[in-house]
Amino acid sequence: MTGAAGTRVARAALSRLFEPSDAVGPTLVSLVGPDDALRIARRDLTAGSQVRRMLQEALGTSGGRRDPLDDGLSRWAARLGDLAPERDLATLERLGGRLLTPESAGWPEALDDLQLAAPLCLWVRGRKDIPERVRTAALVGSRDSTAYGDSVTDEIAAGLATRGFSVVSGGAYGIDARAHRAALASSEDGELPPTIALLACGVDRYYPAGNEDLLRRVADSGLLISEVPPGSSPTRWRFLQRNRLIAALSAVTVVVEARWRSGALNTAHHAAGLGRAVGAVPGSVHSANSAGCHRLLRDGSAVCVSDAADVAELAGPLGSEPGDREREAASPAREQDGLAVPDLLLLDGLPRRAATTVDKLSSVAGLSTRDVISGLARLELAGLAVRAAGGWRRREG
Amino acid sequence: MTGAAGTRVARAALSRLFEPSDAVGPTLVSLVGPDDALRIARRDLTAGSQVRRMLQEALGTSGGRRDPLDDGLSRWAARLGDLAPERDLATLERLGGRLLTPESAGWPEALDDLQLAAPLCLWVRGRKDIPERVRTAALVGSRDSTAYGDSVTDEIAAGLATRGFSVVSGGAYGIDARAHRAALASSEDGELPPTIALLACGVDRYYPAGNEDLLRRVADSGLLISEVPPGSSPTRWRFLQRNRLIAALSAVTVVVEARWRSGALNTAHHAAGLGRAVGAVPGSVHSANSAGCHRLLRDGSAVCVSDAADVAELAGPLGSEPGDREREAASPAREQDGLAVPDLLLLDGLPRRAATTVDKLSSVAGLSTRDVISGLARLELAGLAVRAAGGWRRREG
Repeated sequence: MTGAAGTRVARAALSRLFEPSDAVGPTLVSLVGPDDALRIARRDLTAGSQVRRMLQEALGTSGGRRDPLDDGLSRWAARLGDLAPERDLATLERLGGRLLTPESAGWPEALDDLQLAAPLCLWVRGRKDIPERVRTAALVGSRDSTAYGDSVTDEIAAGLATRGFSVVSGGAYGIDARAHRAALASSEDGELPPTIALLACGVDRYYPAGNEDLLRRVADSGLLISEVPPGSSPTRWRFLQRNRLIAALSAVTVVVEARWRSGALNTAHHAAGLGRAVGAVPGSVHSANSAGCHRLLRDGSAVCVSDAADVAELAGPLGSEPGDREREAASPAREQDGLAVPDLLLLDGLPRRAATTVDKLSSVAGLSTRDVISGLARLELAGLAVRAAGGWRRREG
Repeated sequence: MTGAAGTRVARAALSRLFEPSDAVGPTLVSLVGPDDALRIARRDLTAGSQVRRMLQEALGTSGGRRDPLDDGLSRWAARLGDLAPERDLATLERLGGRLLTPESAGWPEALDDLQLAAPLCLWVRGRKDIPERVRTAALVGSRDSTAYGDSVTDEIAAGLATRGFSVVSGGAYGIDARAHRAALASSEDGELPPTIALLACGVDRYYPAGNEDLLRRVADSGLLISEVPPGSSPTRWRFLQRNRLIAALSAVTVVVEARWRSGALNTAHHAAGLGRAVGAVPGSVHSANSAGCHRLLRDGSAVCVSDAADVAELAGPLGSEPGDREREAASPAREQDGLAVPDLLLLDGLPRRAATTVDKLSSVAGLSTRDVISGLARLELAGLAVRAAGGWRRREG
């Protein structure tokens, strides 16, 4: 097989051969392309000294004891017998999925920011397109979320979905599952963006088992995405690498709850490393499940977010409703807001019951008679002062 | 009266004549000194054209319609009849207090950072010295604090006191009162730094009335401080100005709880404006009493603090116990912490029950046979892998 179809199959094969972010593989692909990279890995093609030298230079290993390609070849050798990309692609098709590659339409450009750590391809289940980055927000957090974390996740995910954001997460228990569920519940009302679950295993597997029903619903109404082929198990390494895809695909990554050590912090650091916005939801200082969020806030890695409006604002231009402005509007203005200093001093000096004179006000407020008189006129206009028997008194708001 | 004693009395008098941060008074004092400033204010001395010009220049009002000194003189005129500085000083002495001025020993140098907004003098009740700034931390917040805010205040104030910090606050209901109480309770155990209440009224008054007992205890074991003379009422203006003194006297200002609009935010902004550290305690996003704290965190005005160790660290060199390090130590390390990537991949691939072979591990982990063998040796040493019938398996931690 040659040409575009061949490249597609080659990428599918390489995604089984190389672990995500293999130290050598992606660089080899960048130098010789996926087709020749696969041939070299299968030993159908011998890499010339020029390729070896370029590889050494690209990896900064020139002069090292071992040749990096030999390292790679010995790693990949053990998996050559498992290669069956056509079978994997057929499995994906049976599941209603499709393979996306950098060469195909619909490839998310956001992943190019990962440079050499970009995935070789994406195994995708679900009918919808991956939305452009400005329309996506990741919600991640503890597997053992608290009732607080659950309710905040519900609110933020629903709010993001109704604002037109695709909610991205990892399909795990706890915060991830709540985020997907709330996004699905919101999108059932209309044609809202798909919720996206980035998996550490193949998209034919439902992991963790307790989330099978949820993941099936995501596959139906949203998108299940993985960089490893069908049949692959979730390993710790793949979970860690999967996190970089969540971060790269999303305009903003929000950690809702996380312990002091938590995989969610790893996702946040990936996002920060890519220059993406990172948010953290505050919580009780007594909750171990918020300690990781507070850690991110404390070291300046994340911005404090309290609701969907905050997250939308952080995501950038599309999130055009500033949370602050909403709260400003919701917070009742106080009667003295906007008063200049002399009028504030005067208002402070005005008694609420018995009236007082201009002279007394001048002494109490520390203002000249002239300032007292002009100030009283302004306060009267503002409905804060009233003329009474014996002078002036304060008018209750 | 002339010389140092005269200057002292002049400052006492001016502190009644001028409202805190009077727009003209402190500048006049900086130009001609407190003695002549008082004479000018009393019209015992006529300010020459040179003084008027310097004042205009200093205030940036040259060319303005009205002369700033005339403005000031007309403001101050109404209070000239109330001047009785010797009586005020006698009142203070009866209360066991003392007047501190920039000319006297014990004047807190930290206030000099306020420049022209520095107070003219401090009316102080209590026997102890005002600690140097590096030993002080302000805790401020809502008057209508929640149980959460109360308990966090108790923990942080007690932790700061036992770490040798003087706890500074405003003597109000809610967070302020809890901070003073917890600091007093801690200092009863030994000779700890005094808790300091900065008042918006004279130090002879107990405001608010419900805090009378507390304020009496602060006067006994700590310090009550005000820039306005005995008998002065607390006004909104004085509360706002008092906040700048809390901020200026403290190495760090921590907002424990605050609504979206709250006087505590004003104190925080004063502290930030002075280049002082500002902390905010996170809380539930559903609590209106934490909205102000989250606002500070969100706009980058404050650092997230969870406990006394965090606050001490923020205060600077004396707070030598990094909160992060404490929590790092308290958080149990996981078995895989510190493993290199190939060993992590290998650990992921090791079964927990039936043993597996080096060849299978090579395929599962995507590692060369050589890396599997050397990795297994390292994992065995680390107690994470064990030889078993048929090869290797994982050893449970």
